[in-house]
Amino acid sequence: MAALSMLACFVAVLLCIRTSRTDTKEDEINPSQSTSATSQHRTDSLTILMLLGLLLLTILTVWLFKHRRFRFVHETGLSMIYGLIVGAIIRYTSKPMDVSRDYVRAKIISENHSYYTDNAPTALYVSFFARNSSADPTIRQYDLGAPVDEPITEPPLERTVTFDPEIFFNVMLPVIIFEAGYSMKRRHFFRNLGAILMYAVVGTTASCLVVGGILYGTTRLMHDITFSLNDCFYFGAVISATDPVTVLALFNDLHVDVDLYAIVFGESVLNDAVAIVLSESVEVYGELSSDSFNTEALFQSVGKFLGVFTGAFAIGSLFGLSTAFLTKFTKLKDFPLLETALFFLMSYASFQAAEAAEFTGIVAVLFCGVTQAHYTYNNLSAESKDRTKKLFELANFLAENFVFLYIGVSVFTLQPLQWHLGFILSSFLAIVVGRFINIYPLSFLLNLGRSNKIRPNFQHMMMFSGLRGAVAFALAIRNTETEAHQHMASATLMIVIVTVILCGGFTTPMLQWLQIRVGVEEDAPGQMNQLASVRNAMTGQPQYSSMDGASGGQPSSASPPQQGGGENGQQPGSTPSEKAWLVAKWYNFDTIVMKPLLTNHRPTLIETLPKCCLPIAKIFTTEEQLTQGLGGPTDHDSDTDMIIDENQLSIGGMSDHSQLDQASVSPNHQTGRKEPLQFDDGDLGQFEADDKPLTP
Amino acid sequence: MAALSMLACFVAVLLCIRTSRTDTKEDEINPSQSTSATSQHRTDSLTILMLLGLLLLTILTVWLFKHRRFRFVHETGLSMIYGLIVGAIIRYTSKPMDVSRDYVRAKIISENHSYYTDNAPTALYVSFFARNSSADPTIRQYDLGAPVDEPITEPPLERTVTFDPEIFFNVMLPVIIFEAGYSMKRRHFFRNLGAILMYAVVGTTASCLVVGGILYGTTRLMHDITFSLNDCFYFGAVISATDPVTVLALFNDLHVDVDLYAIVFGESVLNDAVAIVLSESVEVYGELSSDSFNTEALFQSVGKFLGVFTGAFAIGSLFGLSTAFLTKFTKLKDFPLLETALFFLMSYASFQAAEAAEFTGIVAVLFCGVTQAHYTYNNLSAESKDRTKKLFELANFLAENFVFLYIGVSVFTLQPLQWHLGFILSSFLAIVVGRFINIYPLSFLLNLGRSNKIRPNFQHMMMFSGLRGAVAFALAIRNTETEAHQHMASATLMIVIVTVILCGGFTTPMLQWLQIRVGVEEDAPGQMNQLASVRNAMTGQPQYSSMDGASGGQPSSASPPQQGGGENGQQPGSTPSEKAWLVAKWYNFDTIVMKPLLTNHRPTLIETLPKCCLPIAKIFTTEEQLTQGLGGPTDHDSDTDMIIDENQLSIGGMSDHSQLDQASVSPNHQTGRKEPLQFDDGDLGQFEADDKPLTP
Repeated sequence: MAALSMLACFVAVLLCIRTSRTDTKEDEINPSQSTSATSQHRTDSLTILMLLGLLLLTILTVWLFKHRRFRFVHETGLSMIYGLIVGAIIRYTSKPMDVSRDYVRAKIISENHSYYTDNAPTALYVSFFARNSSADPTIRQYDLGAPVDEPITEPPLERTVTFDPEIFFNVMLPVIIFEAGYSMKRRHFFRNLGAILMYAVVGTTASCLVVGGILYGTTRLMHDITFSLNDCFYFGAVISATDPVTVLALFNDLHVDVDLYAIVFGESVLNDAVAIVLSESVEVYGELSSDSFNTEALFQSVGKFLGVFTGAFAIGSLFGLSTAFLTKFTKLKDFPLLETALFFLMSYASFQAAEAAEFTGIVAVLFCGVTQAHYTYNNLSAESKDRTKKLFELANFLAENFVFLYIGVSVFTLQPLQWHLGFILSSFLAIVVGRFINIYPLSFLLNLGRSNKIRPNFQHMMMFSGLRGAVAFALAIRNTETEAHQHMASATLMIVIVTVILCGGFTTPMLQWLQIRVGVEEDAPGQMNQLASVRNAMTGQPQYSSMDGASGGQPSSASPPQQGGGENGQQPGSTPSEKAWLVAKWYNFDTIVMKPLLTNHRPTLIETLPKCCLPIAKIFTTEEQLTQGLGGPTDHDSDTDMIIDENQLSIGGMSDHSQLDQASVSPNHQTGRKEPLQFDDGDLGQFEADDKPLTP
Repeated sequence: MAALSMLACFVAVLLCIRTSRTDTKEDEINPSQSTSATSQHRTDSLTILMLLGLLLLTILTVWLFKHRRFRFVHETGLSMIYGLIVGAIIRYTSKPMDVSRDYVRAKIISENHSYYTDNAPTALYVSFFARNSSADPTIRQYDLGAPVDEPITEPPLERTVTFDPEIFFNVMLPVIIFEAGYSMKRRHFFRNLGAILMYAVVGTTASCLVVGGILYGTTRLMHDITFSLNDCFYFGAVISATDPVTVLALFNDLHVDVDLYAIVFGESVLNDAVAIVLSESVEVYGELSSDSFNTEALFQSVGKFLGVFTGAFAIGSLFGLSTAFLTKFTKLKDFPLLETALFFLMSYASFQAAEAAEFTGIVAVLFCGVTQAHYTYNNLSAESKDRTKKLFELANFLAENFVFLYIGVSVFTLQPLQWHLGFILSSFLAIVVGRFINIYPLSFLLNLGRSNKIRPNFQHMMMFSGLRGAVAFALAIRNTETEAHQHMASATLMIVIVTVILCGGFTTPMLQWLQIRVGVEEDAPGQMNQLASVRNAMTGQPQYSSMDGASGGQPSSASPPQQGGGENGQQPGSTPSEKAWLVAKWYNFDTIVMKPLLTNHRPTLIETLPKCCLPIAKIFTTEEQLTQGLGGPTDHDSDTDMIIDENQLSIGGMSDHSQLDQASVSPNHQTGRKEPLQFDDGDLGQFEADDKPLTP
């Protein structure tokens, strides 16, 4: 039945395309019967309809695959494959254009006085006279578009299937990235923050340099294309944005080890931000220096990198904090619709504010998402919690599939593309080497300071998870002005397609082959130790120690302390002493000031601040907050713990390994039946527990 | 606290505007430092940010008003007022432009050979040379925009605050109209279908003609503006789209009589559709005839009206039915996210399909919404039901407020506007007369056939509910090519603003003054009588009469049969016999074929179809459907009853009047305290019950 519907869908899509082509021809023959605006509108509608049809087809296929428990292809991969097929059909059923018939009706004007590239008029006004009439001329406005390589002489459909890349930057990517921040399992993220930052910032920069260097070398050998050093590094930045959405979806389904999940997820989220800012910095460098090394330009571009990153972080957090503040101090909660609308608008405003301030909106929206989840989420009404989660989940699903669909279609329809086999092959080589440099040396360095080592099979898996996706694609097609950029766009397209299909498809075999534990249940929210840490942080104010009895969250179903206390609370990523100090400082501040100030949960500022600040504390404490927490904090859902004091955790009986027994039988998704998978030897749990608590 | 945040918000907004103005000036002075594309992007971001800020401000104010139980101003009215204020600030703080500084950098080309108005090139390509360099010229593309009256020489911010009207037609209106269809209380709607169709189709057409006629007369008297007859009727169509969103929100809050609600709501939804199609038909007429009466053109435009309406209805319903079919026969339900995505995409596809087929997308999306609610909703998983409802509720809230906000801003910033006091005043006169003609004579005619009369105070209230809103505005600004259309746009703006503020603000006093009952609880879903009707419809197949015991829905809290059985089941709007026949035919068909075929509820097709069709019936019956209904149908939420057999209803003890006792104390929202309101003398219930059941 589903197959039937799908078939119907596909036939409809193809019909659309054929109809569109026929109709545009009719328009062409009788130009007077339909104005070009109307025919443009129809073509637009048909294009959107075609993409909607493809999305529907993807949904039905995904459902069929899920229904049959066939996990070889992820939905994004499917979208892409459908896109490829339809793109190919559009491309190869188009007849070559008959320019003599004034098809596109383009006029070429040569402008060589008074205006230059850098001050092209934003609009041209052209007076047209009515045919066979002496009426006043009509003035029509022409708006400045993108620079093009040559006047476009392609048939309309093929041309309009290409969307404005700004749609990706202003609509799709913010949604995808915000959802990443908002749905992030912050506890595991922050526990591995050191490693994540290392991979994302140092690793991505290294990868950018390595890729750029290799390509600079290889392009010297190819005499038919010209790449400047700057172009090479720009491509290095663009292609260093990994997007393991396929891998992560499988990780999620298979319940892969939480730390591996956190590192891969965290790295991919942050390295998008890093790659975006890096590419902008490279552009700045390119504008200032002219292909020879220039120290001043280098410093300026490093400054740009730091400035943009800090600015975007500040704006994103500021909007998140304001939302928390508003939701805490107004009773907006009584009207969940208003609350959700506020939440949504503030989040989108963070994007636009960063763009207006010339920082990067996508980076801002990421941090806004994290802040919203960490503070605001706790203040929302139950209905808004549910609604915001579901809204962004749906929006993310649609945006992601749309992007991958469009990637598929683009291969055949994106116009200014240059294909060069040598360049594409060498870029594949470069990204493999770049990923290698990102993962193995950094893991070695990290392991020097980590007691919870990143084991070789985890490193191999991370190497394997270096898929490229939406961000790399969007960056690559944003700028296709020069020939070099057109080569980059085609190489990026190929890399995205190959990595998504290959790495996505072979994730499950790879996990088995690398003997990585699956079926690990996430540990329950450790509220007990949160309270304990709060108590540590606030020396000598045990007003609410009575809450201990009521706390404990939802204990895991089987939770005897075992295997040396699970992953211990040591902060990985640097030597224990220095790292713990910084993290503990922030954690104290968060617990004593930020959370009491910005959320409706106990403890209140009255309880956490010193006595001298009591008047201020009282202002920022709501009645709701005071009456909260009599039965223990109620944030079961919010995953608010930033850092786990694992000593408390093991006493509380919650451990990552608590579900190991259940995990030993896990569905084998290749066959659709339940078969035991091999597990690693469990060495993650075999480290000595670090006895030092986070706070003195 | 809220006031504080609001103040902060507003200051931020104003700062944005000032900053933007300063920055654009900097760009102007140093054009080489920032390309025009970047500055355009910044201005866009700032504009969006300003609108987001205003929306946030609206939300907070709305919350404050709701919190303080102050219902004088509806949120849409508030949006509009804020929009007006900010529009005025933008307008009057703009300094006059210094054209000599090449501010807009527009170039005017006079084109008087080879191209005419009807074949203007869709793109111009201009070669620009780099300044101080001998590099190859850059080719930039200029895309054809709207015809303009004169080259635009306004400062950029003011110019970019005007959005593309197509955004309203492709994004905002579909959302608002779909939500109207999807959230429609179909039972009351269908019960008053005759009256609603009469007001919406006949009444709107009459109003269009009356308004057009009056304006044709008055514009003859004004010598400084020229309106063709066609222009007048176009305006009549545009301005006949009522949008009583403010009134309906209050009706909903105050629980006004359900029939009054249904008629006002139903009329406003359908008359939008009628007005849109009418305005297109008038355009067709205008293209075919040249201002003298032309019978052929008239017939063609009537044909266009019928064709577009039927086509849009067919496409909308088809997409709705396909969604129902897909959700019934696939187990998509197991993955609510996929299901919701499918639902969303199919609904939007109905819009684009109708646009591509050159019917009207907005009309299609309305009928799609109704079909989705009537059939598909019943098949959705509980999570999808919830998610789709909340999603569209939020989207509708945002879209509606955005539109009204933008209406406010437009008064001062929309560029090609012509203000003429005489025309605006006469258009006010015309719409009052038009509304009068729509309501009173039609009500008189309707009352001839209705046993449940539309009483004079209801008629006055309907007259009063003739606000103009989003649709009229969108239609008016869609086309501002000629001077006449610019007059129409300004008159529409004024009418929208005045009616929304005045009629919106005085709804509560008006209800009191007209002594219209408030505090009426909606009657509970009448499942009992649905079953009874099903039984009537299927002569002699009582397989599931055992369900009677389990049915009855949620009985109203106080429900003795009273006052002659409440509003009786007579179909209003035409003489009982002929109308009942048509409606009963459709109802039988719906009950016997459509619902069993398209939903997962009992009865199944096996039960409803004659024995000879058993093989076909079996194909279209799912297992889920067969195991359904053992405890009675579970569609408590879905409001699926189309037509109420009120004889059954009164036996079942459910009546619109059941809550009359509770209703006698109702909050008086002016003072914030509970005080009794006056009620009408209850004559709605004093008609003799019509003994004839719907089905023989």
